Amino acid sequence: MLAMLLGTAAPVAAQQPAAEARVDTAIARARAFIRDTMGKAGIPGVSITVMRHGRIVWSEGIGWADLEQRVPVTPLTRFRIGSVSKPLTAAAIGLLVESGRLDLDAPVQRYVPAFPEKRYPVTTRQAAGHLAGIRHYQGDEFLSTRRFATVAEGLTIFRDDSLLFRPGTRFHYSSYAWNLVSAVIEGASGRPFLAYMREAVFQPLGMRQTVADHVDSLVPFRARWYTADSASGIVNAPYVDNSYKWAGGGFLSTTEDLARFGQAMLDNALLRPETFRLLTTSQRTLAGEETNYGIGWATRKDAKGRLTFAHSGGSTGGTAFLVLYPAEQLVVAVLANGDGPFVGATPRIAEMFLE
Amino acid sequence: MLAMLLGTAAPVAAQQPAAEARVDTAIARARAFIRDTMGKAGIPGVSITVMRHGRIVWSEGIGWADLEQRVPVTPLTRFRIGSVSKPLTAAAIGLLVESGRLDLDAPVQRYVPAFPEKRYPVTTRQAAGHLAGIRHYQGDEFLSTRRFATVAEGLTIFRDDSLLFRPGTRFHYSSYAWNLVSAVIEGASGRPFLAYMREAVFQPLGMRQTVADHVDSLVPFRARWYTADSASGIVNAPYVDNSYKWAGGGFLSTTEDLARFGQAMLDNALLRPETFRLLTTSQRTLAGEETNYGIGWATRKDAKGRLTFAHSGGSTGGTAFLVLYPAEQLVVAVLANGDGPFVGATPRIAEMFLE
Amino acid sequence: MLAMLLGTAAPVAAQQPAAEARVDTAIARARAFIRDTMGKAGIPGVSITVMRHGRIVWSEGIGWADLEQRVPVTPLTRFRIGSVSKPLTAAAIGLLVESGRLDLDAPVQRYVPAFPEKRYPVTTRQAAGHLAGIRHYQGDEFLSTRRFATVAEGLTIFRDDSLLFRPGTRFHYSSYAWNLVSAVIEGASGRPFLAYMREAVFQPLGMRQTVADHVDSLVPFRARWYTADSASGIVNAPYVDNSYKWAGGGFLSTTEDLARFGQAMLDNALLRPETFRLLTTSQRTLAGEETNYGIGWATRKDAKGRLTFAHSGGSTGGTAFLVLYPAEQLVVAVLANGDGPFVGATPRIAEMFLE
Amino acid sequence: MLAMLLGTAAPVAAQQPAAEARVDTAIARARAFIRDTMGKAGIPGVSITVMRHGRIVWSEGIGWADLEQRVPVTPLTRFRIGSVSKPLTAAAIGLLVESGRLDLDAPVQRYVPAFPEKRYPVTTRQAAGHLAGIRHYQGDEFLSTRRFATVAEGLTIFRDDSLLFRPGTRFHYSSYAWNLVSAVIEGASGRPFLAYMREAVFQPLGMRQTVADHVDSLVPFRARWYTADSASGIVNAPYVDNSYKWAGGGFLSTTEDLARFGQAMLDNALLRPETFRLLTTSQRTLAGEETNYGIGWATRKDAKGRLTFAHSGGSTGGTAFLVLYPAEQLVVAVLANGDGPFVGATPRIAEMFLE
Repeated sequence: MLAMLLGTAAPVAAQQPAAEARVDTAIARARAFIRDTMGKAGIPGVSITVMRHGRIVWSEGIGWADLEQRVPVTPLTRFRIGSVSKPLTAAAIGLLVESGRLDLDAPVQRYVPAFPEKRYPVTTRQAAGHLAGIRHYQGDEFLSTRRFATVAEGLTIFRDDSLLFRPGTRFHYSSYAWNLVSAVIEGASGRPFLAYMREAVFQPLGMRQTVADHVDSLVPFRARWYTADSASGIVNAPYVDNSYKWAGGGFLSTTEDLARFGQAMLDNALLRPETFRLLTTSQRTLAGEETNYGIGWATRKDAKGRLTFAHSGGSTGGTAFLVLYPAEQLVVAVLANGDGPFVGATPRIAEMFLE
Repeated sequence: MLAMLLGTAAPVAAQQPAAEARVDTAIARARAFIRDTMGKAGIPGVSITVMRHGRIVWSEGIGWADLEQRVPVTPLTRFRIGSVSKPLTAAAIGLLVESGRLDLDAPVQRYVPAFPEKRYPVTTRQAAGHLAGIRHYQGDEFLSTRRFATVAEGLTIFRDDSLLFRPGTRFHYSSYAWNLVSAVIEGASGRPFLAYMREAVFQPLGMRQTVADHVDSLVPFRARWYTADSASGIVNAPYVDNSYKWAGGGFLSTTEDLARFGQAMLDNALLRPETFRLLTTSQRTLAGEETNYGIGWATRKDAKGRLTFAHSGGSTGGTAFLVLYPAEQLVVAVLANGDGPFVGATPRIAEMFLE
Repeated sequence: MLAMLLGTAAPVAAQQPAAEARVDTAIARARAFIRDTMGKAGIPGVSITVMRHGRIVWSEGIGWADLEQRVPVTPLTRFRIGSVSKPLTAAAIGLLVESGRLDLDAPVQRYVPAFPEKRYPVTTRQAAGHLAGIRHYQGDEFLSTRRFATVAEGLTIFRDDSLLFRPGTRFHYSSYAWNLVSAVIEGASGRPFLAYMREAVFQPLGMRQTVADHVDSLVPFRARWYTADSASGIVNAPYVDNSYKWAGGGFLSTTEDLARFGQAMLDNALLRPETFRLLTTSQRTLAGEETNYGIGWATRKDAKGRLTFAHSGGSTGGTAFLVLYPAEQLVVAVLANGDGPFVGATPRIAEMFLE
Repeated sequence: MLAMLLGTAAPVAAQQPAAEARVDTAIARARAFIRDTMGKAGIPGVSITVMRHGRIVWSEGIGWADLEQRVPVTPLTRFRIGSVSKPLTAAAIGLLVESGRLDLDAPVQRYVPAFPEKRYPVTTRQAAGHLAGIRHYQGDEFLSTRRFATVAEGLTIFRDDSLLFRPGTRFHYSSYAWNLVSAVIEGASGRPFLAYMREAVFQPLGMRQTVADHVDSLVPFRARWYTADSASGIVNAPYVDNSYKWAGGGFLSTTEDLARFGQAMLDNALLRPETFRLLTTSQRTLAGEETNYGIGWATRKDAKGRLTFAHSGGSTGGTAFLVLYPAEQLVVAVLANGDGPFVGATPRIAEMFLE
């Protein structure tokens, strides 16, 4: 009858285009895989955003943002992104380098005079590449409940400790090194770190959901945090205040904001191509060993030889992963409000969208 | 330079940049004005998105998406956009004109052979400009509860009625004329109307929240609909099925999707500049009178002489407004789930962001 | 050290009492069984309340009250109880019998003069026992969308139809017979049916969540209705207006309200023991056959020979079950917002609490 | 008589009974008053339950249980009840006195041998009446974040401090005295305090929503806590762990549970009349001065001379009030998740239901 309606013209094709159908299949597989992994890992809620060729092809909340109040995760839910804060902070480094306000190879004291001289000079490049020998968390420091009012105050935790080794000789992951990086950003930019991040990175990229995890402020759509306990199942995560480490582990964000950020990096929408290359080129130790880490980005090939730029994040009650496949133009962001083993899932999810 | 923060030097500037502060003031004023207007008009929930210079500067849900379940409006809430569907459909017209598949001045029967010949020929340009003499709703048609399975079926409501006047002689607003337009789009594109909209307009522009208001499908974050009743206050709106008028009044969307759509029009991200000009240039009657309506866009100057492209929408339980200020690079989208007098509020809100 | 604290006294016993532990086990089993059954039957949300020996031992919402808005079921969620409305209405009959205002064996016309005389006289006892020969739904009547303003208007659907058989000769389930019953209640009480139910039954029993399912009124915590579709999975149930059948199938309630109602019946808190016995004693056909149905209550023995008083209910987008085990002092109420096969689950759940 | 409805006779009376209408007026006034007071005091959410003559006549949640997630308060929302925990604990004292297991005038060491002897003997009656001279919070103790695993451990905070005065000589409000009371309950009952409260008080009274405020456990419907800040408006309340004071300030509850508890006290449903009289009879100092406080209940006359039994509660991020008017058979329970000045509102609300 519709043939009639249209007379002799070609029939209206009702079938879904093939590319769209393939994406739908990948989504269905990934959703099932995520649900299954959540169950095994004791993760209450997950948010995921997948961008392909610059377009969001999937963005969904799965499970619960808040178990007590039974609030479902949505794409607006803000999670602790932990160390995925580092690639965001790295963008600020890139901007300051581009504008000539930051010399990555100057001693950090040029920007942070109050930071004590150590046995060896320390540069921002080394600190941001986990090559400076600055120590990581000790004991219960990860569960800190103290509020640090300024970035400078956050340096006091470790600034009087000796370097673990001569800078450049070893890769030693350190979130505290990024406390120092944020002090450098303040010195170079003349703005408080959080204000600079907002004005120079988040606002220009439209990352309206990305903010510091201030415990007292009312942050709309902030998830609640959980931890899996072998005895009692899932319980509320211990109370922590992450104000001591904004730069390396203190931001809240959504998967859409993170995916857009990743895409903006690939598109050179904020940074020049050579600057993003600087951030994503593996540094080397003095002995010439690749660290597979540039400045705020881990740089690796996946099992099939595809180049990836990525960062994972682990927080009290949070798990995060952001991965970019530059050649395939794929960006995947995954955030969870539990700290069970979930991070490893992301590459498998990415794989489903590449097949 | 942070010589400084920690030493004797110039303090890190903590104050908010002036532009940011001005926007915050506008938001506070607009929010108060909206709340006040909602109270007076008996509107349960409102969503608003404001873009300035291509960036979302405000996006917020106010009030309730669902009064029975007490679900708050968020930027993800989908509303009935009513006749704001027309500018979306107009983008599809623009694409088909650009690709040469649609001649606006051909008789509609070239694309819709089943549409009966009338006393005068009718063209797509006339139908889309409310100049064709096709009638509008009669009686209770606006409260239709019947499900129309196809666009062709939606033509049956009015296709055997006579034209109200000789095409071109008068402006007579008609949503049914847009039923005909959507049949033309099917004929010209060779795709079902809703599929073509999704593939050609919504997906390329990332409008993932914009869908047809199918009553039986599960549509995540779809609001509930209300009407203000002088006796009992706010009540549930009558049940309707809008499947008879997708093109002119049947889509659901969010203010973020609509604002992004508006911005994409200003940025010529989907259509060539001359095509958008075609859609937003006021048509004239045969007598040469301006209609202040192009193709799916009302074209007017505001009280201060600023050019605006806009469309309002009124649905059972819904109110919508989308306005573009091309010179000022301002886009405002407002959606509400009540049908009280709210539309007039949008220009006043826009004004707050222009001062 | 605690031994010390308490000196020589008996140690503080930390273990859970045995009865409490048994209930916890039953709850865990029942919850798993319900989740499993929901998955198979395509039921989005379920509420359950179990009372034992007059005390609520379990009350929980499982799944979703609203799939589009992702609102979880809680014990406050109101569901369509369908024919479980009949035992509620039966309590009103009981009250009117007790006060001498209603003679169950008088022709209904004594209370409803406008009801046409039939070939045989019809009594309230017969109508309430599905023995009157009044017909049930025909065709699409179950999907009625018309609003009936009064009980009298609801009689018009069937009042001019002939009886299906001579009253008393057969059991033929009929919700319309209960329309007639509600008209009798109006006649006998001198109050509108819904007002009488509220004043005489719901308020005295504290059933604050039990109300008529008015489609336009705002009813807090009213669930949304779903139907399982073999092609598309779960979809929104068709729109219906149940105002034509308040008495036999038009109430909304919660499982806590229903369980409390059931317990009040067992406790003779509203009706005298002999009155409840009247309602729960199986009527017989003229030929002496048991109908296993009294007045608004089905009366049966379960597989293990335990006496039960129960009613099931099926609505558009709703399933309901209320069962009382008088000897075991067990009351179970189950409500669901889907119409898949779920009712049969209730006796199995009851069993778990009886073992 | 409906001779009538359908014929020529007297119309069915549709008007609402007068008592019902009066209650509706009181509810409307009280709701407006509460909203207004919430706005002034910076209180996000309030729950209220009013019982009259043993029946809940109003139970409603107003505002937000969770501002970040925008979860509305419902009658299921659990709040910190602070010192309204004391009347609950007092019921346990009453039960132990009734069964002869507790002698209120014995030295507390009979039940808590580990509690150090003081300069003067201390009795349970004195401790529970704030007459023992035990100190109250000092410094920041109210903001304690430490987890106390046992009641015994909670004694350590103050047990080595001297009495403030000779027991009986002065009224000095002390929540720590109730820590001691809970240790007495453990000693007398042979059960852990929380287990005894659950088994002896909460379960028999059907108070299924009343539990200890364990910070790590998942407690369904637990509200979030707020504090009004003159600079920033409402902020999240500081993190606290109330495990050091279950008996005197550590329970979560709902207004329905509290109202039912209050009614059960008036109805002697748990305790004998003389026992409840014991709890609600003002104690006196040795000098014969009335303290207006019995055992866990403040006993006062209101402005119009009506006798009231009541307790208020103030928590970090919580405000609570429970009041009983025994002669008028009125019980009002109010809970809020802010700590602004709200408590004073309750008597005014009660007044509205007494006029």
